[in-house]
Amino acid sequence: MGRVTERRRVIRIRDGAVTARPDTLVAEEPLEIRLNGKPLAITMRTPGDDFALAAGFLVSEGVLGRADELANIVYCAGATEDGSNTYNVVDVRLAPGVPVPDVTLERNVYTTSSCGLCGKASLDAVRTTARHPLSDGPEGPMRLEPALLASLPDRLREAQRVFDRTGGLHAAALFSADGELLDAREDVGRHNAVDKIVGRALQQGLLPLSGTVLMVSGRASFELAQKAVMAGIPVLAAVSAPSSLAVDLAAETGLTLVGFLRGTSMNVYAGEQRIALGERAAND
Amino acid sequence: MGRVTERRRVIRIRDGAVTARPDTLVAEEPLEIRLNGKPLAITMRTPGDDFALAAGFLVSEGVLGRADELANIVYCAGATEDGSNTYNVVDVRLAPGVPVPDVTLERNVYTTSSCGLCGKASLDAVRTTARHPLSDGPEGPMRLEPALLASLPDRLREAQRVFDRTGGLHAAALFSADGELLDAREDVGRHNAVDKIVGRALQQGLLPLSGTVLMVSGRASFELAQKAVMAGIPVLAAVSAPSSLAVDLAAETGLTLVGFLRGTSMNVYAGEQRIALGERAAND
Repeated sequence: MGRVTERRRVIRIRDGAVTARPDTLVAEEPLEIRLNGKPLAITMRTPGDDFALAAGFLVSEGVLGRADELANIVYCAGATEDGSNTYNVVDVRLAPGVPVPDVTLERNVYTTSSCGLCGKASLDAVRTTARHPLSDGPEGPMRLEPALLASLPDRLREAQRVFDRTGGLHAAALFSADGELLDAREDVGRHNAVDKIVGRALQQGLLPLSGTVLMVSGRASFELAQKAVMAGIPVLAAVSAPSSLAVDLAAETGLTLVGFLRGTSMNVYAGEQRIALGERAAND
Repeated sequence: MGRVTERRRVIRIRDGAVTARPDTLVAEEPLEIRLNGKPLAITMRTPGDDFALAAGFLVSEGVLGRADELANIVYCAGATEDGSNTYNVVDVRLAPGVPVPDVTLERNVYTTSSCGLCGKASLDAVRTTARHPLSDGPEGPMRLEPALLASLPDRLREAQRVFDRTGGLHAAALFSADGELLDAREDVGRHNAVDKIVGRALQQGLLPLSGTVLMVSGRASFELAQKAVMAGIPVLAAVSAPSSLAVDLAAETGLTLVGFLRGTSMNVYAGEQRIALGERAAND
């Protein structure tokens, strides 16, 4: 994990005073994800948890849904002229019999030209590729207390060991319905932190992540809502605002979407049946 | 511009009080960018300035460098079954004689398998595709006062008309060397805001953007530094942290990179010759 941060010289200006000193920065390097040996995607990421990142990315894309569909993941050595391993290329091998999807990068084209490209098509694509239901889990229906939700941002920050040193990382954390911290990951890319959590869960045979809450440090975009849905996570909570399409996806799939989770305040955009709102909401 | 925000119902929880009301959210929809009729990329974006977004994306990719290389940009109508226009597909036509690059989406594969994938290869790819020098412009060498830089975050926020209503937008602004606001754009995606600025500048024949400062509301990632370099912008300033690879790219290309621009404080990570540091830096 020594590559999570790197040192660089920086000139600091503080109220007119100028000093030069070494500074700690979050590391960023490209990662190429291959599927059965064929290049699929490149993402700029913070090194570390690379196998989990690759697995989680493939869950989000609908390629992987269960641990037994994954044969193994390896770093591709010998990709350089001198035969050294850059640890920036991973190959994901599917288990025998698992269908290999069309792995052209055009998979991101959510729709064919016959139906046009629009928000509705994006929603349909997630719904038709989702492998898991959004389930509240064996404990029965989730009824999250607002006070519990309000405690999650601080607990996410506590889990961000690297953050204090660099200020440059996005973070995501997975919590149980009673607020137990199950996992926390950081990355220079907001999507990558979630992929790392989902990929680790897949590797451990924990998908779908029924009865859990995914907390993210930034905004709730369509793609983050998509990742929650594809992993079977029923609740997504974000420190900042959701987009219109994230709200639409949540409403369509039954995802509970909470935004602007700050202090004791929050906004619930969809799936409010999983939030303990008391009597007042019913009267509104 | 009516699609920049959309209204959705939200349940607000404030210190235990629960109310339901309409809320304004930033709009997010997919945009497919085609080059000479062939699908190239899809990005999730806030509708508006779509032609500028497409043009700027192609500047960042090294396809476009001057206004006369661009023939025109159109929305693709008739892409839906009923023949309606979703305004989510744009086609960029290059001027006759302009070489059409290999437009497979694998353009993002910065390097061949023979040299491996690493940060160094990413830096090399930008340097070899850059169309413009990073020039201080006709006014002579830039010597930006820290007080001027310190004023830019507030001026960026002032320019964010939408931000106050949604809290969900990333922003970028272009300033002249003496602090004049030249352009400001917002988007649900941080890269898109910069692409919109660069694309508008290309359309107006203003590339390379010599002698300007690009200010972004978030972090300075490798990709944002890449976009500045590809547009010929000599100074990139960010409210939050840069990544290691962004600093390396700045050092290699001569880009001035300022991070943690907050209050009267900032960190200068590269290209400090464009900052008026006074005597103290020389003594350090």
